[in-house]
Formats: sequence, structure tokens, C-alpha cells
Amino acid sequence: MARIVDVDVMDIRFPTSRELDGSDAMNPDPDYSAAYVVLRTDTDAEGHGLAFTIGRGNDVQAAAIRALAPHVVGRQVPRDAAALGALSRELVGDSQLRWLGPEKGVVHMAVGAVVNAAWDLAAKLAGRPLWMFLAEMRPEELVGLVDFRYLSDALTRDEALAILRAAEPGRAERTKLLLDKGYPAYTTSPGWLGYSDAKLTHLARSAVADGFDMIKLKVGGDLGDDVRRMRLAREAVGDGVRIAVDANQRWDVADAVSWMSALAEFDPYWIEEPTSPDDVLGHLAIARALRPIRVATGEHVHNRVMFKQLLASGAIDVLQLDAARVGGVNENIAILLLAAKFGVPVCPHAGGVGLCELVQHLAMFDFVAVSGTWENRVIEWVDHLHEHFTDPATVRNGRYTTPTTPGFSAQLRPSSLHHFTYPSGPAWAPTPGHSRAYGPLSEAQHVHKPANGEEGDEGGTA
Amino acid sequence: MARIVDVDVMDIRFPTSRELDGSDAMNPDPDYSAAYVVLRTDTDAEGHGLAFTIGRGNDVQAAAIRALAPHVVGRQVPRDAAALGALSRELVGDSQLRWLGPEKGVVHMAVGAVVNAAWDLAAKLAGRPLWMFLAEMRPEELVGLVDFRYLSDALTRDEALAILRAAEPGRAERTKLLLDKGYPAYTTSPGWLGYSDAKLTHLARSAVADGFDMIKLKVGGDLGDDVRRMRLAREAVGDGVRIAVDANQRWDVADAVSWMSALAEFDPYWIEEPTSPDDVLGHLAIARALRPIRVATGEHVHNRVMFKQLLASGAIDVLQLDAARVGGVNENIAILLLAAKFGVPVCPHAGGVGLCELVQHLAMFDFVAVSGTWENRVIEWVDHLHEHFTDPATVRNGRYTTPTTPGFSAQLRPSSLHHFTYPSGPAWAPTPGHSRAYGPLSEAQHVHKPANGEEGDEGGTA
Repeated sequence: MARIVDVDVMDIRFPTSRELDGSDAMNPDPDYSAAYVVLRTDTDAEGHGLAFTIGRGNDVQAAAIRALAPHVVGRQVPRDAAALGALSRELVGDSQLRWLGPEKGVVHMAVGAVVNAAWDLAAKLAGRPLWMFLAEMRPEELVGLVDFRYLSDALTRDEALAILRAAEPGRAERTKLLLDKGYPAYTTSPGWLGYSDAKLTHLARSAVADGFDMIKLKVGGDLGDDVRRMRLAREAVGDGVRIAVDANQRWDVADAVSWMSALAEFDPYWIEEPTSPDDVLGHLAIARALRPIRVATGEHVHNRVMFKQLLASGAIDVLQLDAARVGGVNENIAILLLAAKFGVPVCPHAGGVGLCELVQHLAMFDFVAVSGTWENRVIEWVDHLHEHFTDPATVRNGRYTTPTTPGFSAQLRPSSLHHFTYPSGPAWAPTPGHSRAYGPLSEAQHVHKPANGEEGDEGGTA
Repeated sequence: MARIVDVDVMDIRFPTSRELDGSDAMNPDPDYSAAYVVLRTDTDAEGHGLAFTIGRGNDVQAAAIRALAPHVVGRQVPRDAAALGALSRELVGDSQLRWLGPEKGVVHMAVGAVVNAAWDLAAKLAGRPLWMFLAEMRPEELVGLVDFRYLSDALTRDEALAILRAAEPGRAERTKLLLDKGYPAYTTSPGWLGYSDAKLTHLARSAVADGFDMIKLKVGGDLGDDVRRMRLAREAVGDGVRIAVDANQRWDVADAVSWMSALAEFDPYWIEEPTSPDDVLGHLAIARALRPIRVATGEHVHNRVMFKQLLASGAIDVLQLDAARVGGVNENIAILLLAAKFGVPVCPHAGGVGLCELVQHLAMFDFVAVSGTWENRVIEWVDHLHEHFTDPATVRNGRYTTPTTPGFSAQLRPSSLHHFTYPSGPAWAPTPGHSRAYGPLSEAQHVHKPANGEEGDEGGTA
């Protein structure tokens, strides 16, 4: 009976703000970071997980993960649904830590990191990539993973069971399809706010040439710029390619409606994060005003109770699940089941550190065993930082390659862990002009405004 | 020009779980704690603030406050509305820390602690208790303190200004009334779940004898027990005294409706936290089903965007503002203005560590300068831990005594800071039978169930 004997927590930061990678209307200078956790056992097996942050505060996130260690150290390695359900319930249910949420923010993201690490460990021991490990579980086991508290007015255990049972007959066929063809992706590469018109046009054309049938642009800085950029992008990709836009929470309700109405002639596929992720009724008002333009959100939606409301009220047309925002795999199964109940497609948020690696498993599990379809489903692709992972996500011809290595794919290479440890790693050695991480804050570090520079790279969370 | 030269952050914990003080249906064993912050200046003046937690995780909360220090150290002491508005905007707007919320959980509570400490400092320098410092500001200054982002569909700056201007003429008269009479209170003392019937009856009668015309009972453990306790309480206090009940997030929507329907014959004044604080639409469904019983929530509502929805949808009849959950005084002014706009009374949540001390100022400011009324308003009173404060809240004849000492009243005595510092303070020295704070978690420490014991004390957050 293997046991977990230690919980290692590391503060890993990539100095992405030096090149303005991933800058958008609300996040001018992210340093993509991971509060990284390794569950060590008394065997060679390890479980790896992470909470994604964008720099300052990654130490706070790491402290929250450490606060969960007493629930894990000494515990028998959870290898099946029953044990993984029990672990999730215990972590979410710590009544003292719960006060700091409940089920939101730093503490909930810490739960997600530890839960995901436990799933990585269990899937490795089962010799399965996570998506397959999940998709081979019985419907009864899967509903046992879910906390239905606060959900029963929208989704009962019996309804969830019926959804999973309905998808059972096609599992084998869809598994084969997935392994043969991979899963549909879209790319955010052309669309960062700081790009020149020429670069936007070039990257949009390249995306189509690379096999993508959907791209995404950041919007919300300046309306005139957005109209011009949207026109250029539409001209570059033609009518057959979808163009989504993303405002990163920039607007109030009325702003969202007027701004998107001005872009409507270019046929935007969805508007992502038009306003505060907390504003269910705001999203509903925006969705009603803008249809047929779809409203999408999720990367900052903090738990299943919020998703329940967004779905049940009809406030969103696309659900952008995030692997490292909520309480881990277990809560994401609840979210996938809610989306299936309400018939809303799940198109995961990715980018950042390891989010592509993580979410592909959840979308693929959804395809095989929950919704049973990839119609109107697509996973975000941002080609950035994958080289640091031992089992990196890859996209070919506009589709994610289905992972087959056992585990959850979010394991960083030892050399990357060393190099990017903050603040002691070599990547953070002060260099002329790049010392600000050590000094007092500059004005540019905390002002919400679009990046105005022309420079940038294809990186980013989105 | 005085400057802030240091930010001291302390992990203060009171071992309240040893006596099951404050146990309820969701919080079986709280150790009432404060992540405590002192803004030191280059003069004798200091600003004190805190985030209230219930034990584990207080260190994480303290780490989040420390992460804000670079925004504060070296800063000119903010003494007026303009400077206090700028400080709040800078702290909330840190784009990297914002990712960890946004505007929720550990990071947002840290912002609240620092913002409140800055207000304590400014009020002390102005020689005014906080409520008076605020109530003497011009409407234009007050709206300048508020972040209207995400609010404009429900409350614009102009509407807020009109609310404040309408209340201007009566300020002097209400200030005099407040100083003469104090502010209405209610007490939670009789109602903790673990109390015997005899103790409940005795404390309910004592509350009436002490001048309270409203008490509160905890519910949600066992329906039969709640029916019996509610009957006893009603018999003890008679028809003229209001009895509120509090479920501490225990129920799903249908449970809340059926449970409260069974208690309706005893005329409960409000049902507090019937379900998840995130569930706007759930509260709305409960409110529609239960009227005329009022629905109340707020102590875990994490920001103004959530309150906006609860108010605009008609989901709550009573708004229970908390001083240490949201982003401090500035966001609470937004919340008071929203409540005034929608005509919903604000009845602050208190108890815990220093919450009575803090919220009294906000309710009194509301009375003088925002809503202009105390009709149907009442501040919770829990007679616990006040002896540790230099300017403790006091209640006489069922009313809070209006504070007149300059500041925000949340300054802990130096001896208390020393004694209850965790884990090095004398209060945390291991003693036989009380060593669990240092050991692995026991089952009892993380299970959500009502406290079944007969023991308890009049303490608690509520």
C-alpha cells in the first residue's frame, strides 16, 4: 500500500513580461507562473500539479497549497474513483480553509492543484493518459466524484447518471476516432493587442495555412483599432474561418453591447469575457442583446455554482472550462455534466503554463464519455512554454494530438524547475534593464490598460 | 509630509475551538483569527486593520497582505478622499495579483485589510471616529472613493451622487441622534446550535430583559430540533420580538424552501445564508418561495458585483455587509449606495474578531449620510473577544454605543497581540488535550456537520 510521504511546493515563474508575451486589455505585463506541487510517495511514483498565476502572488498561491499538505501527507495513494472522490471532498471541506473562499480564489485554486496532482499520480499508476483513465470509469464511479451540493436545482445525481449512461455505448468508437484524428483546436496567435496590422494579417493567413478553421483576436483597447483589425482579419481568413474575440473583462454591460454591435458586420463567432466573470445577470443581458453572436466565459469563473447559474439562465453559449481555476478534475466533471445537461458546448481556456496540457484531457474525456460529441467544440491553442513539459501538448493540422503517455501531462522538466524557480533560479538573476521584479512596483506594473507597443510574441493565456 | 515606512503583518489566533465557541452548521470548530496589519509611519501615527479568518489559512491570508506591501511602503500617508481612493484603486488594480481573484477570496480580503488600516490611520489623523470622518465628506468626495466598474447597469456615478445629496440636509440632526441614542443591535447569543433547550430559553429571556427586540438562532442541523428550538424561543420572547434564523449555507434551494416552510408558523424574521453565497439565482428562487420571510446574506458575498446582482434581481431583502470580506471601506461605500438605490436595508454581519468594532462605523455612516434611516436596520452583536481591543464596541439597552474615539476601532491591545500570536504566543503553548493545532488533522476538524455537544459559549461569528 503506497503512501504519500511528502508534498513539495515550488514557486516557478517565467519572465514573460520582458517581451510582453500575452499582454491584453486587462493584463499588461504577465509573468507566467505556476505554484507547482509534487506529491512524493514511498515508491518512485509522483503526482504533479499546478496553479497557474501571472506573477506576483505566486508565493501566496504556493503558501495555500502548503496549507493543504496535512490532508495529504501520510495518506494512502488514491488510485480509484472512491479514493479520489474522498480526497477532493476532504480538501474542499476543510471548514477553516473554506472560510477564505468559500470555494473560490487562492484556496480553491490550491485545492485544484493538489487534486489534479493526485489524478496525475493515479493515472500514471493505472498506465493511462488521464482522459482515458476517466473515460474507462463506470457512470456510477464518475458521479461519485462529484459534489452535488448547491447543484440539485439544476442537476441531480440521477440526471448526471443518465447523461453518462447515454454516452456509454459509443465510448469505444469515439476513443478510436480521437486516437486517429485528434481533437479540434483554434489559435489565439494572430490576435494579441500589441501586434501591427501587417503581423496580424500575416499570422491570420498562416493560421489558415496551418489547418486552423478558427482564430481569436483580443479586443477592448480602442474601438477604431478593433474595427480595423477585425476587418483585416476577416479579409485575411475569408468567410469560412471563424473569428472569435476576447475582451478580458474590459467592459460594463452597455459598453459590451455597443462595442460588439460595431464589430457585428465582421461576423464574430463569440465574444469572450465581455465583463466581470462574477456577473451572471450581466452576461445574460449581453447575450440577449447580441445574439446570434455567442457569449463565452469561464477562465475566471470560480466554481460549479457560478457555472450552474450561467448555464441555467442562458447567459452563456460557450463554456470555457479552465483546468487550474476550480477545484480540479472532480469539479470539472461536475461542470462538464452541467454543460451537457444544458446543451452548451465546452471550449476550454488554455495558454498560460500547462493549461493546454491539462485541458486537452478534460475535453477528450467529455467527447468520449459525457457529451459524446465534438460538434462546435474546440480547444484553445497557444504555442508557448510547451518545451518545458515532459509530455507537451502538440497541435497538427489544426487539431490537438491525442496524448497517450500515462498521467495528466502537466509535469515540468527538472531543468525548467531549476531554471525558473523564483527568485533563486538563473532566469531571475538581475540583468540590466530587467531588474524590476526585485524593485518597487513601476506604474506600468499595475495599470489596467491595453499594451500599446508593437512588440509581442505568440504567447499568452487567453 | 508623513510617509508609510513599514507594513507589519501578524498571524493572531484565538483558540476558540477548545470551547466550541461559535460553532454552527458549517463551521464546527473555528479558531477565531486575524491576519493583522499595522501601517507604520515616520511619525507616531499608525493604521491598524485585519482580515478575519477562522484558523487554518490565517498564514496564507497574512502572506497575501505582505504581497501588497510594495504598494504601500514609501507612500505618503493618505489623509483625504482623493488619496484614499487612489490607494484603493491601486491595490485592487494590481493586474498580477488580480489574477488570483479577481476581486475575491484571499487577495481581495488582503486588500480590504490594508485599505481599512489606511482609513484607520486617516481617521486618527483627522481626530474623528471613522463614521464621522466619512459622514463629513462631500458627496463628490464620497463618489470619488467608489469603483463604478461593472456597476453602471445598476448604479451610475450620477445616481450615487443624487442619493448622497438627498441625505445631506439631515446629516447634523442624525449625527446628534446617533450620539444621543446609539444604533439598534440584535443578539445571536441565545441561538448557537450546541445549546441545551434550557440554556436557549434562559438566554432568549435575558436578551429581552437586556433591551434587545431581536435575537437570532442557528438552524440547519436537524429539522425536528429546529422546530422545537424555534417554538421555545418564540414562547420565551413573545410576539413582539423578532427572531431571525441562520443556516450558514447549509442547504440547496429545495431544502431551504421546505425547511423554512416548516418553521414559518413561528414567524421567523429572516433566513440568513440559506444556500451558497455565490448563488444569486438560488437566493432569488428561495426568496420568491418564502415571502414574507425575508432572505438575508452577505458575510461571504465577495464583492460589489455579487451584491449588485442580489439587489437588482430582488434575491435579498436584507443586505449583511461585512467589513473584512470585501475590499475595505471603499467597496463597502459602493455596497451601501447600491443598497440605498434598491431600498434594501443593510444589517451588518458581526462577531468574529473585531467585526462588531468595524461594522458599527459603516452602519452609522450609512445612517447619517447614505440611506438616512435606521428603520429596519440593526447591527449584529456577539459579546466575544472585545476585551482585546483598545476601543471595544459596546452595547447598552439593545443599542450600540456610538464610538467617539478617533479611528476605525479595530486596534488590538499590545498584550493581546503578544499572547495570541500563532504559533509562538503563550496562548498556543501545547497543553494536555489541546495540542491538536500542532498535529495532523483530526476527523472532527474538517467535517461539515452541526456541533452536537451541549457545550458552547456566547461567542461566534454569525
